[in-house]
Amino acid sequence: MSAEKTDIEESLAFRPKFNEQGLIPVVTVDAASNEVLMVANMNAVALEATLRTSKGTYYSRSRGKLWVKGELSGHEQKLVEVLVDCDQDCLLMKVETKTGQCHVGYRSCFYRRVKKSSPDELEFVAQRMFDPKEVYGESKDGPGKSNGRKQQ
Amino acid sequence: MSAEKTDIEESLAFRPKFNEQGLIPVVTVDAASNEVLMVANMNAVALEATLRTSKGTYYSRSRGKLWVKGELSGHEQKLVEVLVDCDQDCLLMKVETKTGQCHVGYRSCFYRRVKKSSPDELEFVAQRMFDPKEVYGESKDGPGKSNGRKQQ
Repeated sequence: MSAEKTDIEESLAFRPKFNEQGLIPVVTVDAASNEVLMVANMNAVALEATLRTSKGTYYSRSRGKLWVKGELSGHEQKLVEVLVDCDQDCLLMKVETKTGQCHVGYRSCFYRRVKKSSPDELEFVAQRMFDPKEVYGESKDGPGKSNGRKQQ
Repeated sequence: MSAEKTDIEESLAFRPKFNEQGLIPVVTVDAASNEVLMVANMNAVALEATLRTSKGTYYSRSRGKLWVKGELSGHEQKLVEVLVDCDQDCLLMKVETKTGQCHVGYRSCFYRRVKKSSPDELEFVAQRMFDPKEVYGESKDGPGKSNGRKQQ
């Protein structure tokens, strides 16, 4: 194993490895239940803002800018802790939240599972917690268009 | 919201969106505790193999080939279910496992957290479950070199 690899894996220096777009993927989970809520990206500025403000803050590739989760919906995330994986190219963020985190209305973005009997099909495994139209409005542009993919 | 976007989010058709490299990220969690164990990638072949064999199977970018988790270490993953996120560009895989899943020796790859008092530093939050040298051997090539990054 190279010295550099060992250093990244064993070190207590936080050296997040951003990809060629300057981004690092983040898995966000509920701090109490460990339920995976969403997967998104941060750039260095979003990571710094998250750690400084304790509000989950990401980078939107589609809109090309930072977004504070919940800035539109009110469904913000209160930071509990950030963990990093062995090779420091992925983050795990534990948060406290009060309601659904997915812009489609579910607690988690992972509200469908692959059917075992028919792996080309999905089945819902969750109930909606809110109506996206009430939260994001009924503009014909809607959250999917005016605010870009994954605006939440 | 565009018809296409609504269709992807609301549909019961499983249409995983692979990126330009033909890969989709996968968050793998312990089915019982929801603990996030690792984050890796699948290509279409790895996903099909995982669903068919019920053994966690990924695609290694560094080695340019499929790897069945545990094929070297014995630390395999028994599939419980695969979920997909709202825009179908990320998977969540729930698995049963018997021992540590990270090649560094920990249960999870996320064994360090960012220190609140000093966000450039990490602190360990887990204990090693196995000695990587015993599992992967002490060859000077080691798991990090001969088998590529994230060989587990």
